[in-house]
Amino acid sequence: MEERVNRRWRLAEYPEGLPKETTFRLSVEPVPDPGPGQVLVRALYLSVDPYQRGRMHTRRSYARPMEIGDVIVGGTVGQVEASRHPAFPPGSFVEGLLGWQEYALSDGGDLRRLDLAPELLPASLGVLGMPGLTAYFGLLDVGRPKAGETVVISGAAGAVGTVVGQIAKIQGCRAVGIAGSDDKVDVLVRELGFDAAFNYKTAADVRGALLDACPGGIDIYFDNVGGSITDAAISLINLRARVVICGQISQYNLTKPARGPRNLTAFLTNRAMLQGILVTDWEDRYGEGLNQLAVWLREGRLKSHETVVEGFESAPVAFIGLFHGHNTGKMLVKVAEPRI
Amino acid sequence: MEERVNRRWRLAEYPEGLPKETTFRLSVEPVPDPGPGQVLVRALYLSVDPYQRGRMHTRRSYARPMEIGDVIVGGTVGQVEASRHPAFPPGSFVEGLLGWQEYALSDGGDLRRLDLAPELLPASLGVLGMPGLTAYFGLLDVGRPKAGETVVISGAAGAVGTVVGQIAKIQGCRAVGIAGSDDKVDVLVRELGFDAAFNYKTAADVRGALLDACPGGIDIYFDNVGGSITDAAISLINLRARVVICGQISQYNLTKPARGPRNLTAFLTNRAMLQGILVTDWEDRYGEGLNQLAVWLREGRLKSHETVVEGFESAPVAFIGLFHGHNTGKMLVKVAEPRI
Repeated sequence: MEERVNRRWRLAEYPEGLPKETTFRLSVEPVPDPGPGQVLVRALYLSVDPYQRGRMHTRRSYARPMEIGDVIVGGTVGQVEASRHPAFPPGSFVEGLLGWQEYALSDGGDLRRLDLAPELLPASLGVLGMPGLTAYFGLLDVGRPKAGETVVISGAAGAVGTVVGQIAKIQGCRAVGIAGSDDKVDVLVRELGFDAAFNYKTAADVRGALLDACPGGIDIYFDNVGGSITDAAISLINLRARVVICGQISQYNLTKPARGPRNLTAFLTNRAMLQGILVTDWEDRYGEGLNQLAVWLREGRLKSHETVVEGFESAPVAFIGLFHGHNTGKMLVKVAEPRI
Repeated sequence: MEERVNRRWRLAEYPEGLPKETTFRLSVEPVPDPGPGQVLVRALYLSVDPYQRGRMHTRRSYARPMEIGDVIVGGTVGQVEASRHPAFPPGSFVEGLLGWQEYALSDGGDLRRLDLAPELLPASLGVLGMPGLTAYFGLLDVGRPKAGETVVISGAAGAVGTVVGQIAKIQGCRAVGIAGSDDKVDVLVRELGFDAAFNYKTAADVRGALLDACPGGIDIYFDNVGGSITDAAISLINLRARVVICGQISQYNLTKPARGPRNLTAFLTNRAMLQGILVTDWEDRYGEGLNQLAVWLREGRLKSHETVVEGFESAPVAFIGLFHGHNTGKMLVKVAEPRI
């Protein structure tokens, strides 16, 4: 019989600036057995997300910080390996915040059963998971798009951004993406239907490129990035614009606070609104969001785009890659094949 | 018979930086006669307001810029001197955007009839006018105060700020004011019932002073000032805080855009909201606001506080004084006594 071990990625040290491989430590432990009411889940896909950086320091953030030695907190899609919980029979697929480990025990309270074909499992960490829900509620509830408006998305080729632009199109808006490579720009415009997109790394002038893409100004700015890209976008907002602050990935690894042009006068003169969001604020409406996203996906109006990195051992490298723009769409780590 | 002239303050030049006396030019003209349907209004009080600075350049703002030679745009309380309009008989009191001139013609469309005792006329440019309405809708509709919350107001001793703090108290909140002199701090705390206030010019450290006054953080920040005071306040906002951007007086006279610490991460981690406001967005609800403000005033729960400068010729000096903090409460220029 095969000797099973449970590999787990733990926090080795709080990173200063960019996380690096020494931020993480691999531990190898026995696979636990489920106790009464418990489920043993075998990971198939790990999610790597920018928000995880926010838990890797002792500063206050929207979530409890991790302690040194903790298993890295993160979303997982897995398959029930053994179960003493009637709602989760062996072989069923689940999603939950099970962390970066090959096997996890759960009492089921934090698990969502996925009744999906195996090929849709990755989407349940992307379009049909937290990133999709973030895009759905952030754009529709906070951005409140009206047909004909211009929606600009920074980090447009990321897990959330790819969905925001597609939902903007479904709402009859003009979708303009800002991304960090020509390949990503290509995916946004050719595959995902954005009206325009540009590579901020090669644009001579981000503000000029935005103005070219948005001759009528910006009605909604959905921000995943922050920093100078956001400065440029805010300088072009229209009367009654809405700015959705979903992420500030350019700021997460700074060791001291950055400075930039003051922008509150733009909000005053335009009676514009800005709102920071976190998807869990819509927890009681996840069902509505997932249903609508699944309908759009089935109808072909919404496409799922993932960057899949192979192998449990690759999780730190994949995570670090987020801060270098290595993903287009949702970044996942594939840990194992489902057992059919 | 007394020879009547109409003195009018006109824009002489667009100011660079702070407006100065040469920004304005006094012209002396004949008093016009009302045509059919017209009203001739004799000014009793002129309003001087920070927003007027925004019209004195060609840059885009929330209002049409003034042209060189235009009579300075501004609110006036006056008395009908002669009338060919049935709704405004001679002797009646009115308020309107009649500009800095001793006599103005109006077709009545821009006039609000004031059925007030003469001693309440100044209040109709303050607590019972645009500043009061700005405070009322800005705090209640955008700030959405809940009893027990902490409301911080910058420019707290100004026309709007004095009312915001008093309404915050009526709502059961803790009101904390930031002002620019010890005398103003005194008025806020002793006369107007603020829970705490401090002089940002003598505080060793604005953030420290705010933290002392707000040990539980800031739930609503009502901003009239901008700049480094606002940086300090935003660094102390609580989860789901609301930031109301009503003015940015520290920024209006800058000849180049200022820089400051980036603050969007504070909005993200706190799921906080920021909204720029302009009172005319609530025009269809002015009646509601004025009624409520008048009730509070009558009940003694709201106090009117004005700084009155004497003489039509003093309007530019009074206006320039706004940017040096010369006013406590609403700044007015008294032009004439009402005829009883």
